[in-house]
Amino acid sequence: MSMNGSFVEVAENSHFPIQNLPYGVFSTANEGAQIGVAIGDQILSLKKISHLFNGPILNSKQHVFGSVTLNDFMALGVEAWHEARQTLQNLLGNSCPTLRDDAELRASAFFDQSDATMHLPVKINDYTDFYSSVQHATNIGTMFRGKENALMPNWKHLPVGYHGRASSIVVSGTPIRRPSGQTKPENSPPVFGPCRLLDFELEMAFVVGVGNELGTPISAKEAHKHIFGMVVMNDWSARDIQKWEYVPLGPFLGKNFGTTISPWVVTMEALAPFTVQDSPKDVEILPYLKHDDNYTFDIALSVAIQDESMVEPAVVCNSNFKYMYWTMKQQLAHHTVNGCNTQTGDLYGSGTISGEDEASFGSMLELCWKGTRNVELGNGQTRKFLKDGDNVVMSGFCQGNGYRVGFGTCEGKVLPALDL
Amino acid sequence: MSMNGSFVEVAENSHFPIQNLPYGVFSTANEGAQIGVAIGDQILSLKKISHLFNGPILNSKQHVFGSVTLNDFMALGVEAWHEARQTLQNLLGNSCPTLRDDAELRASAFFDQSDATMHLPVKINDYTDFYSSVQHATNIGTMFRGKENALMPNWKHLPVGYHGRASSIVVSGTPIRRPSGQTKPENSPPVFGPCRLLDFELEMAFVVGVGNELGTPISAKEAHKHIFGMVVMNDWSARDIQKWEYVPLGPFLGKNFGTTISPWVVTMEALAPFTVQDSPKDVEILPYLKHDDNYTFDIALSVAIQDESMVEPAVVCNSNFKYMYWTMKQQLAHHTVNGCNTQTGDLYGSGTISGEDEASFGSMLELCWKGTRNVELGNGQTRKFLKDGDNVVMSGFCQGNGYRVGFGTCEGKVLPALDL
Repeated sequence: MSMNGSFVEVAENSHFPIQNLPYGVFSTANEGAQIGVAIGDQILSLKKISHLFNGPILNSKQHVFGSVTLNDFMALGVEAWHEARQTLQNLLGNSCPTLRDDAELRASAFFDQSDATMHLPVKINDYTDFYSSVQHATNIGTMFRGKENALMPNWKHLPVGYHGRASSIVVSGTPIRRPSGQTKPENSPPVFGPCRLLDFELEMAFVVGVGNELGTPISAKEAHKHIFGMVVMNDWSARDIQKWEYVPLGPFLGKNFGTTISPWVVTMEALAPFTVQDSPKDVEILPYLKHDDNYTFDIALSVAIQDESMVEPAVVCNSNFKYMYWTMKQQLAHHTVNGCNTQTGDLYGSGTISGEDEASFGSMLELCWKGTRNVELGNGQTRKFLKDGDNVVMSGFCQGNGYRVGFGTCEGKVLPALDL
Repeated sequence: MSMNGSFVEVAENSHFPIQNLPYGVFSTANEGAQIGVAIGDQILSLKKISHLFNGPILNSKQHVFGSVTLNDFMALGVEAWHEARQTLQNLLGNSCPTLRDDAELRASAFFDQSDATMHLPVKINDYTDFYSSVQHATNIGTMFRGKENALMPNWKHLPVGYHGRASSIVVSGTPIRRPSGQTKPENSPPVFGPCRLLDFELEMAFVVGVGNELGTPISAKEAHKHIFGMVVMNDWSARDIQKWEYVPLGPFLGKNFGTTISPWVVTMEALAPFTVQDSPKDVEILPYLKHDDNYTFDIALSVAIQDESMVEPAVVCNSNFKYMYWTMKQQLAHHTVNGCNTQTGDLYGSGTISGEDEASFGSMLELCWKGTRNVELGNGQTRKFLKDGDNVVMSGFCQGNGYRVGFGTCEGKVLPALDL
């Protein structure tokens, strides 16, 4: 296996060197939806090279690469994921002639990313969103309840989360229509109209590869065997709708009009070299939430906004996945400790990821501090919340020694509300 | 079309006369999962008679009856649903010889319900639970916040709801394992252990037949074209787990360990004769929530508990779907007004259905009034919450003139918690 490089050219700042190899689903003008792996500015179709997966597990499972989602492949389990990665690193490496020297196969199996349309990489059955960044939860709590009561009493004892809407999860590039809904002006009855406080939330999400049976929990120590990989996620939020509706049963229409994920699923194996220490816990946690190894990752995250008048996106936030208080292992163990089942393709959002620095806050609500200050976009442009026409561009990558393991972008442009 | 009766014998109190014809999915020792219609104590397999659907819409769509869920059939739309019902009422009626006089086809197409295993009738993608019984919301609010603040300010302005977990919805008869989880004793840190306050919630749910595109709301006036039918639902609840976890993002592990639905989907067309007046609204509602026709149904509901020592179930609750404050049209219009999309097979729970009378309260939490009184099961047996071994039996039916349009039962037995 060559880790020295690929025969495919990879630019220095590319998110997709041979150390990454994220999985996605793409189509082109002439090709239907199929599974591919990103390498440099190319996509290697796994449908076209499924016959080259000859390892002991995948040899009899090559059909999974002919599917139009990653689900069948993911369901094979962590050893199959490892074998696929080894096969791909070998096939794409400098020293293996199989693909490198087969001009015909290369011509049929590689596609320019610029010619491809990306699709949702997985069939998502259930989607849960956590709330696991201590700084975000503290910021929101401080705004609405004051500094002394910022965190709810349960927050440091369990990874707070709620069920979201799977149907409205879309892939990067899908426009998001500004929602309309019911909001409540102070001292007058509720009114109906377009959301006035439209926001993004910078999140990451993990995809479950292998589920569990109803009634049988996944332990924190074993949770990594169930987690296939990660994406960057924008949990679009209508703050004014959310504020009126969410007591006592939680966010609903303020969230479910759209959630955007990046198209490439970066595997946990590709992220492993970027493991950093888990956040220390301020209070003793119950045993079912404990695991021995670190499961936090140094992933630099950014959010930029570009309206139709701007030449390039203006960065409004630089954050990092390492700010998470709860790990994905803890989230999955908590979610299933009551016997709740998870299935291949389920998606689990981190919650908004904010750091301590104001420039690292992961939502406009925090960046404009509830509307009390402007967020600068340069050239005299400012925002408090999102305007129609704003394209929100999230991105994330791990910085290796001379290479990056990245997620590409998670983008979505705000369309004006329907005239209802 | 004969409405006078079927050549299949139907007992007087049967839930499944020719006026009903609910759809389900069943299998037997010799037959794989297939779609059927309940008639008396029999099931008519639609797979075996798919060639008899010769109406203008279904003639070219007979393959939908060969599926293992109702989704493909439901996706055909309200006119196809009507045509299927007409075809079935004709085929099962006294005066049509096609089935009646074809002994061979009858022998292959009819199955005893007692020989059948029922399966989830639909592939459920997303599941939402509303909170639309004013008496239930008032009871819960009174217990936890006092009579003066029982209803939240938003409650009468919009149908409050939250996203639930689709993966753990099971069909009637599936045992439910008592969940374990984190609870918070007063004045001491949280502890882990089996739920001590396990409860049922008497609900009904509707199934969406035809969805909507993301970004395009369904109006209240058109919502009936999207609603295929209804089931009885038990929204099992772990009150102690819920109490500690649910602020601020809503119910999560207190609910998602299991939700049980009855196996037969009763169509809205079968329920139409039992329409009653919608609940009057105490406050003016916004136009997007208004519809002209009544969409409330007189469905008598009951809950009974039977432990292993009891000869028959003891009824603990008699309620009625007509107590709902918000209609299903209002629920669906509200859910989609922000552009949220719904898909064929999505399930929408009513919330616990309680009436004014104490005997009509739809949960143990209300029946035992937060543990302050015993619920009598007869023979000296009492309950506050559910014990291991309790089988909870819900049922519902509409009383016609000499016949019943019913849902059968929605049952589940409580298994002891795992030793974690």
